[in-house]
Amino acid sequence: MSENTEAILIRQIIENWAAAVRNRDVEAILANHAKDIVMYDVPKPFQSIGINAYRKTWDTFFAYTKPGVFDIQELQVVADENVVFCFATMKCADKSGTTDYIDLDFRLTTGLKKINGQWTIVHEHHSIPSE
Amino acid sequence: MSENTEAILIRQIIENWAAAVRNRDVEAILANHAKDIVMYDVPKPFQSIGINAYRKTWDTFFAYTKPGVFDIQELQVVADENVVFCFATMKCADKSGTTDYIDLDFRLTTGLKKINGQWTIVHEHHSIPSE
Repeated sequence: MSENTEAILIRQIIENWAAAVRNRDVEAILANHAKDIVMYDVPKPFQSIGINAYRKTWDTFFAYTKPGVFDIQELQVVADENVVFCFATMKCADKSGTTDYIDLDFRLTTGLKKINGQWTIVHEHHSIPSE
Repeated sequence: MSENTEAILIRQIIENWAAAVRNRDVEAILANHAKDIVMYDVPKPFQSIGINAYRKTWDTFFAYTKPGVFDIQELQVVADENVVFCFATMKCADKSGTTDYIDLDFRLTTGLKKINGQWTIVHEHHSIPSE
C-alpha cells in the first residue's frame, strides 16, 4: 500500500481511539495497543510501561472526568510501510461545561508499528506545557 | 540498510543533538531538523511551528539555564526504511548543582523522515508530567 493509503488507515485508528475515549470504552481504547506500549501521560506517573499500566491511566482519567469532548484538532501523519508516527493538537473538555470541570488543550504524539500485518500503537505521549 | 543499521544511525543523531545542547551550539542542535518541524516543548508556547520558532525555543532555554547535563537515560528507536520515531527519558541539570538551578527529568519523543537520503527531524515532543 502507498504511504497515503497507510496514512488514511492511521487517521482512522486515531479517530477510533479518540471516539472510544469519548464513549468511555476502555476495551475499544486498547484495541490497537501493544503489550509493551510506553505511555508518557499528562499527569504523573512519569511513564507507564506495558498495557496494564496504560489501562490504569484511563481508569484514573475516567475517575476524574467524563469527557464529552476528546477531539483531534489537527493531525499530521508521517507514514512508511511498517512504521508511522503522528502528532496532533487535541481538546479535552467535560460535557457539563461548568468551570469545575476539565477544559484542556493538549498535545499528542503516537508511534505505531505494523506487527503481524496490524498497525499497533507502541508509544503515546500526551502533554500540556508546564507552567 | 537494515532496520538495525538505521536504528544505530538514529541513535547517533539523537546523541549528537543532546551533545549540541550541552555545548550550547545552536547550529549543531539544528543540524538535522526540517524547515517545517513541529515542536511541542516543556514550557509554553503550546507548539512551535517551523525551524525559526524551533530555534527560538533554544534561545529561551539558554537564556535561563546552562545545562551541564542534558542526557539520554534510556532511548528506544522504532525504525523503518524511511520513517523512524524514538522516545526517551532524559535528564537536564545545571552544572552548578545549586538548588536555584534546573534539575529536571523529562520525556522526549522524536519523529524523523528520510528526506533526499538524509534523516531529518520533523517532530519533537518534550514534556514533564503536569502537577
